Amino acid sequence: MPSLDPGQARLRFAAARVARLATADATGAPHAVPMVFALTGDTIYSAVDAKPKRTTALRRLANVRANPRVAVLADHYDDDWSTLWWVRADGEARVLDQAPEALTVLAAKYEQYRNTPPQGPFLAIEVRHWSGWSAS
Amino acid sequence: MPSLDPGQARLRFAAARVARLATADATGAPHAVPMVFALTGDTIYSAVDAKPKRTTALRRLANVRANPRVAVLADHYDDDWSTLWWVRADGEARVLDQAPEALTVLAAKYEQYRNTPPQGPFLAIEVRHWSGWSAS
Repeated sequence: MPSLDPGQARLRFAAARVARLATADATGAPHAVPMVFALTGDTIYSAVDAKPKRTTALRRLANVRANPRVAVLADHYDDDWSTLWWVRADGEARVLDQAPEALTVLAAKYEQYRNTPPQGPFLAIEVRHWSGWSAS
Repeated sequence: MPSLDPGQARLRFAAARVARLATADATGAPHAVPMVFALTGDTIYSAVDAKPKRTTALRRLANVRANPRVAVLADHYDDDWSTLWWVRADGEARVLDQAPEALTVLAAKYEQYRNTPPQGPFLAIEVRHWSGWSAS
């Protein structure tokens, strides 16, 4: 079961259309949510739909403010297990109200964001460690 | 952006072929890894390939032993964002060396496990809360 080297891991991650953000609150309770994202350098950007009337939707923001450590996972599943792979980016996240660079890279990757630019807030995740695995 | 009620969330989760397990260690550092799983009642079972020579592969087990709280996410992504959905199961995990019920339900769901039963250890996750969201 071969590991992916950090360069291979980073390339596969950058091309993925969706990833899953794992955070934890100050007491260590984990949380996970899917997110679209764009990678530039070793920074992952994502836009957060604030949904001010649904407090649970903001848990990722509260978690990041209390505990900036995050793990972001991109993976490929198929019933043919010889094609499986995953990549994990471990790093630290910040919440940004304004993020022009995030808007640029997200709009370049997703047509939806070109048509309707996200209002934010945004997450900027500085990746400290790339890891990954591929079945073949 | 409609929430899924717990019954709907549970049904979608049960049918998913892969989920992502988010754990955190005793210091609150989150971790995420994809996993195949089977749901029976409100218990999620998964088999862990122990890989004794690769200590990083055991981080999910060390985390669960230190901090049993976990979040498990199943989601659907497509570039047509009107079809997106996700379901999250929040609960507590245990590590089991032997788990006959896990073997039975995993083999019923995955052909690979019928051909080669997993040796374990296993994770048993008692789901305390189902939540989910669907774009349409």
